[in-house]
Amino acid sequence: MPREVRERQMCDAAVRVFARRGYSAASMDEIAELAGASKPLVYLYLNSKEDLFGTCIRREAEVLLAAVRAAARPEDPAERRLWNGLRAFFAHTAEHPEGWAVLSRQARSHGEPFAGVVAELREGVVDVIVGLIEEAAAVAPDAPPLDGREASGLAYALVGAAESLADRAIGAHGPDGLGGGAVPSAREAAETLMNVAWVGLENLVSGRRWPAVREVPSGG
Amino acid sequence: MPREVRERQMCDAAVRVFARRGYSAASMDEIAELAGASKPLVYLYLNSKEDLFGTCIRREAEVLLAAVRAAARPEDPAERRLWNGLRAFFAHTAEHPEGWAVLSRQARSHGEPFAGVVAELREGVVDVIVGLIEEAAAVAPDAPPLDGREASGLAYALVGAAESLADRAIGAHGPDGLGGGAVPSAREAAETLMNVAWVGLENLVSGRRWPAVREVPSGG
Repeated sequence: MPREVRERQMCDAAVRVFARRGYSAASMDEIAELAGASKPLVYLYLNSKEDLFGTCIRREAEVLLAAVRAAARPEDPAERRLWNGLRAFFAHTAEHPEGWAVLSRQARSHGEPFAGVVAELREGVVDVIVGLIEEAAAVAPDAPPLDGREASGLAYALVGAAESLADRAIGAHGPDGLGGGAVPSAREAAETLMNVAWVGLENLVSGRRWPAVREVPSGG
Repeated sequence: MPREVRERQMCDAAVRVFARRGYSAASMDEIAELAGASKPLVYLYLNSKEDLFGTCIRREAEVLLAAVRAAARPEDPAERRLWNGLRAFFAHTAEHPEGWAVLSRQARSHGEPFAGVVAELREGVVDVIVGLIEEAAAVAPDAPPLDGREASGLAYALVGAAESLADRAIGAHGPDGLGGGAVPSAREAAETLMNVAWVGLENLVSGRRWPAVREVPSGG
């Protein structure tokens, strides 16, 4: 069997074990067994549990980003790019719940270099959304100058909202972290987010704001 | 010194060390030294690193929830409750960045019973937001019947957006996880969220939806 195929099988097994046991408790014995390989071969190919974890995180981040990028085609207008990108994000995370669990729960809490991969993935997605907002602002009639801080705040809010809905869809908010059960479809999750995101984006671009901001006393 | 005071000092020290090193790498030696206590006394009072971690997580979750609850006073209308609750959330997490880092990054990835405490905290906040939505729906004129799935989807989206903005405010999206730097104020973060949240909530209650949902082909 070619080495790439073997390595992919080992990574598949490792993602499942990391998602279920957590990084610290995951054992190379279990990963090797699940991959149908000997433990020495896993070490020979992927070096160490730490390296294997890093390889898994980078792979899961790359395939997720590739799925979103393929759906958000540059020739489409911003609104359709966001809608298609969101559906691809929720479909991919629902189809790869263990990969998403590793990115969402494990990668951020075990220091560098793992947290950096996820931070980079998130920054990449935030940049894409800021680009959508700028594009929407550029074509909006009579739009006031775009406030970069507001645009980036909205982008971070959307990314967090999408992460939370993806966690919910794989049952990750439940105590066992990989629950399943009756959860919204990818389309439903994308609709929920478009209902707030696109309206928020249109408001931002047109200069409309939540009205009470100016009514409440300042400070705090 | 009374035992409660000593235990509080130990917890304060533990939260700092867990936030900076992560749960696995945190050492009881460092925690004891930072607390100005002997290691045997830390073990006598708080039993084990695992128990100490659990105590810290429960304490940080309780004080955060208490701060939000105190700000979102039941006698206020839903809109003001959300605004005040959000400002309290962002102010508290910005003032206690290490407590927030432990809740947001560490608690979810080290299995039970820790993940359960955070899941319970999140469910508690989601329930509060669903309550706000129901209240807003009850007073809205000509509102169609509220869809419970949509309300809960919006609540999860808001909670995720708030978590992401709180992470950003403490610099947690950066590679070192406790960055600092130029970040939005609590008030700015709350405004960002009200701009999308309240509009989203009003749309949900009034039955308005992102228009393109009905235009795009179904499936997916």
